[in-house]
Amino acid sequence: MIKSISEMSAFSAEAKAERRSIGFVPTMGYLHEGHASLLEQSKKQNDFCILSIFVNPLQFGPNEDFDRYPRDFERDEQVARNYGVDAVFYPDVKEMYPSEPSVTMRVNKRVDTLCGRTREGHFDGVATVLTKLFHIISPDRVYFGMKDAQQVAVVQGLISDLNFPVELVPCPTVREEDGLAKSSRNVYLSERERQEAPALYRTLREAAERLLERENITHIKEKMVEYLEKQTSGKVDYFEILSYPELEEAHETDREMIIALAVQFKNARLIDNITINPDGRKYR
Amino acid sequence: MIKSISEMSAFSAEAKAERRSIGFVPTMGYLHEGHASLLEQSKKQNDFCILSIFVNPLQFGPNEDFDRYPRDFERDEQVARNYGVDAVFYPDVKEMYPSEPSVTMRVNKRVDTLCGRTREGHFDGVATVLTKLFHIISPDRVYFGMKDAQQVAVVQGLISDLNFPVELVPCPTVREEDGLAKSSRNVYLSERERQEAPALYRTLREAAERLLERENITHIKEKMVEYLEKQTSGKVDYFEILSYPELEEAHETDREMIIALAVQFKNARLIDNITINPDGRKYR
Repeated sequence: MIKSISEMSAFSAEAKAERRSIGFVPTMGYLHEGHASLLEQSKKQNDFCILSIFVNPLQFGPNEDFDRYPRDFERDEQVARNYGVDAVFYPDVKEMYPSEPSVTMRVNKRVDTLCGRTREGHFDGVATVLTKLFHIISPDRVYFGMKDAQQVAVVQGLISDLNFPVELVPCPTVREEDGLAKSSRNVYLSERERQEAPALYRTLREAAERLLERENITHIKEKMVEYLEKQTSGKVDYFEILSYPELEEAHETDREMIIALAVQFKNARLIDNITINPDGRKYR
Repeated sequence: MIKSISEMSAFSAEAKAERRSIGFVPTMGYLHEGHASLLEQSKKQNDFCILSIFVNPLQFGPNEDFDRYPRDFERDEQVARNYGVDAVFYPDVKEMYPSEPSVTMRVNKRVDTLCGRTREGHFDGVATVLTKLFHIISPDRVYFGMKDAQQVAVVQGLISDLNFPVELVPCPTVREEDGLAKSSRNVYLSERERQEAPALYRTLREAAERLLERENITHIKEKMVEYLEKQTSGKVDYFEILSYPELEEAHETDREMIIALAVQFKNARLIDNITINPDGRKYR
């Protein structure tokens, strides 16, 4: 476990000097099988695998769950060991932000929709911490789960528009047997909510089928919100069908698209999505 | 001369693979002795010297001189050759910004003063283009002239707060024999204005002497503005005495400080400054 930035940079510099490739999995910890699949993919494609665990205050709004965000470093470290991670970067807040940073990132596109609409500044905070982590760790490849599809879209923009020398590898969402997407926040669900939650993925698949049958998009959205509110005690925060990765209103279905939703339960806000590939047949 | 980002990155990657150090001098071209001194310093300290020439639209305001900014690539290339530059990166705007960037930098500190106060968004544009250039070129050291002292302060913040693996080397302002700081914009001065312009540096030195004698800062500023407006036909945009590099109001003189001014002539706005070292004796 590495807590200091200088030690982490030195580790990476040595790997680079030996011409070893570095795969990087940035997380906020409380690891689940979703993260594990990223670690597996990173191990497969690189000589070294680096995991970071940092609950980044910059990406939480004033009314969000920064203090309450679940943490369990010992278990996380055990998971890292099991998956053969070569270094765990676990800085504290003072190490990453010794004072308010004089320069931060501003995300101008792909943010006024989905989760970005209600989480003002969230993606600015994500982009800022990733910029720091990319500079400290110098990864060749970085791994993100498609569960946070908007995050993947934003980070893809960050990397390409600012010429970061790193390749983004998006990885499929990992699900429970009943279809619920794995998430650190699932622990907040009550027993009843947990039973209702598979309705989210069912709804996404239903919408995908209807989209492939060229049903009207507005009509699909209405039906799906209705269905979700009947099947769960949660409140639908959004249900959108957009182009991907641009995240703009889409009217044709012959291009890459995303169907994405967020449902607010009592103590947890769950998100999920399906992207539909350009051939219009497969979704994931 | 290298026009494409991918070719420039490949050049740097090869240098890195051979463990050669890279010194980088980012400019907007129209090179003068100020730039030449940066190239010399870079040559001294590194195996490779890379010069970039890019008039960055993002750092010009809507009413500023982007279109009118002086350009002379052939002469610049000759200068680069004379100084033994190893690569000149000369991308066009479409190469650097194929579309409006989805992520840009926001400079939060050291900007609400001096030139930043009237050039809204200027330093955001500077930080954004430097972030791109640092990623493309991967320099070990980057060279800036102290003439743009606020830029040096902002870039120092950019590098340290976002953990760029690059060292900033500030270089002293190069002056004409009569004291006028070298600047690409000096060509805009009328003959009469050019004769008046040395008053800027004279005033800075006078202010430094008074500061060392512990004269009241407000009083020094008043006197110097008065002097400048008597000695030149320009209008004083600001005359400030601040802490350096924080650029905050300073009342003690036993710390690093900057005396900085901007004077608006008919077709050129000139800036200049002196920093006073912590020992309170020397200035440059």
